[in-house]
Formats: sequence, C-alpha cells, structure tokens
Amino acid sequence: MDTLKITVHIVSSLDGIIAKKDNSISWFDTTDHYEKGATVTAQDAEEFVKSIDCYVMGARTYEHALALSKKHGWAYGNTPTLVLSNKGLPIEQPSVEICFGDLNRLVNERLKPHYKNVWVVGGAMLIRDFLDLKLADEIRLSVMPIILGEGTMLFDHIGREQALHLKNVTPYKSGMVELHYEVKK
Amino acid sequence: MDTLKITVHIVSSLDGIIAKKDNSISWFDTTDHYEKGATVTAQDAEEFVKSIDCYVMGARTYEHALALSKKHGWAYGNTPTLVLSNKGLPIEQPSVEICFGDLNRLVNERLKPHYKNVWVVGGAMLIRDFLDLKLADEIRLSVMPIILGEGTMLFDHIGREQALHLKNVTPYKSGMVELHYEVKK
Repeated sequence: MDTLKITVHIVSSLDGIIAKKDNSISWFDTTDHYEKGATVTAQDAEEFVKSIDCYVMGARTYEHALALSKKHGWAYGNTPTLVLSNKGLPIEQPSVEICFGDLNRLVNERLKPHYKNVWVVGGAMLIRDFLDLKLADEIRLSVMPIILGEGTMLFDHIGREQALHLKNVTPYKSGMVELHYEVKK
Repeated sequence: MDTLKITVHIVSSLDGIIAKKDNSISWFDTTDHYEKGATVTAQDAEEFVKSIDCYVMGARTYEHALALSKKHGWAYGNTPTLVLSNKGLPIEQPSVEICFGDLNRLVNERLKPHYKNVWVVGGAMLIRDFLDLKLADEIRLSVMPIILGEGTMLFDHIGREQALHLKNVTPYKSGMVELHYEVKK
C-alpha cells in the first residue's frame, strides 16, 4: 500500500490569507460571477468528496469546524478525520480522532497502511509542516476573488524553496480559481 | 480622455514572493511543462506590448531593470516609462523620466491627459499604494510554479479589503498562470 497521496488543500484570498482575524467566513461567498467558469453539480461534489478517504487537520482548524458545525453541520461527513493536537479536545463525531506525535510517524504508521487519498485541510502551520517535511504530494490552492488585507497568511516566509508542477487550473463561476500543483520531489 | 486604464502587473511565486533576497531571477525560467497551457508567439507578445502606452515603476524596480539591461537589454522598449523617485537616478534611455510627487497628481496630471493603457510593474510598495488609493483598475498576477520561501512579499498585510472580479485565467506551457482581475470600485 505505498500509493498514499497526500494533498494539502486550502482556500485563500489573492493576498494569501486563509483566515480573517475574527474568523468570519462570509468572504467564501463571493458576489463575483465569472461567465466562463465551471459549475459543480451536487453529484460532482459528492463523487469528488467520496474519493477522499481521510482528512487531517490542526487543533484550531478543528475547533473552528466544530463551531461552524453548530450552524451548518459537520463539513467532513463520516470520513475519518485525524486532528493533530497535544491537548484534549471535545469529540462530537465518531469519525474524529485526536492524534499527537510527529508527522513522519503519523504518515508512516497511521496513514500509509489505511488510506490512499488523504487531504490536509489546514491550518497554515500544519500545511507548512507537511511541505517542510516533504510529506505533501500535491497542493490545491483555491484563490477567492478578494484581497483581505490582514489575517492569517498561508505561506508566511516558509523559508525553503520548492519547485512545483502545474497539474491543473480550474476557474469557477463564483470567480474562485483552483490552482492544482504536484510537489516535485 | 477619461478612458485611462491602470493595470498593476507582477510575477510572483505561489507564496506571493516577487523578489528573492539576492534579486536573482533564474526562477522566472521554470523547468515545468503544462501540456494544456497556452503558447505565446513572438508576434502575439509584440502586439500585446504595443498596446501598453506607458509604464510606471518604483526606484528600486528601475535600478534592477537597469542592472538587467546591461546583459539582456532594456525590457521596456521605447515606451514612455515613469520612475517614481525622490532621488536622482541615472537615465540611460530617452523614454525614461524620473518623477516625484503624490500618486493622485501623477495619475491626474501626467497619465490621464496622455495615456490609455498604463502598466504599473512594481515594486510591491508602489503596487500597494496604487491599490490603497484605489487608482488601479486591474490586477494581473502571473503565478510561477514555485514556492520561494523567502524574499519580498507582494501583499504583506496591506490592511484594506478589496473585492475583485475575475476577468480571465490563462495557464501557459511554462506552468505560469496569469490571474487577471478587475478591481471593484
């Protein structure tokens, strides 16, 4: 089972910001319209999400997802979700598990034997760690048509150069553009 | 002549860096190949560049362009080029003029009466000033398939939110992706 692929996926503004200071997410709902953009049917989305067999996220991303779930429901369905944290966190979904320890061990012992298509969905620090340890195979950055001006930056001087291979570019009707890269090893 | 359009254009890495610490530019020559990407013929490029009737740049961008011109020739042809600077700078091209004063006056007194398609080509501070003063009509960000990790960031907490309209997305064979936005006024 050495076919594990790890994708880091995140939504950012054009200026590389992934979270506003107040954590509000209304900027995800753009008012933009890009005529030539792709549309996604509910069925497309469902099939796509089915192909992901495990999510990995940091503690604060989890706490944020948990807060949002009160209003919008849990975003990650029944898919196994590993939360990297050194502290205890409330668990409200049977699919969620809190893990700690280093990322190399997590990948080799927990992910490789069980999964093929793992998505790391944030936050910025965890994504930087995956890139820094060369554990990420692909990057999907969804760029929203907005400059936020302040907040948490995805790539804040991550310190190491990394060549990429452009795999795909998909603009959507909402004005969002997905940039899809392979990390060159 | 109120049809002046001001476009800010810059090349950045995926992590939003526009200049390495040592100012080297070899990262512009990607080793990537994106099969579905567009190619640009010399004729396309020439016609496109002809449509730009004035360049505006900051002092350091100019000094860098001047240094590069020793080896590669002057990149901006005979097109009028205004350099924003409070200090004297060497002029080696008849098309170059050093200007100072505030940007609103520059736009109203120097650009509007004479030009229709002005490109602001850097650096980061000048581009941020144009955005901040709402003087930029369009943004063209050419994203190279690389993470640089450190250097000068284009958008370093620019502090003000700005909605954009996606106008076009063009991936090139080199793996570069041009994101083209209209600044919503």
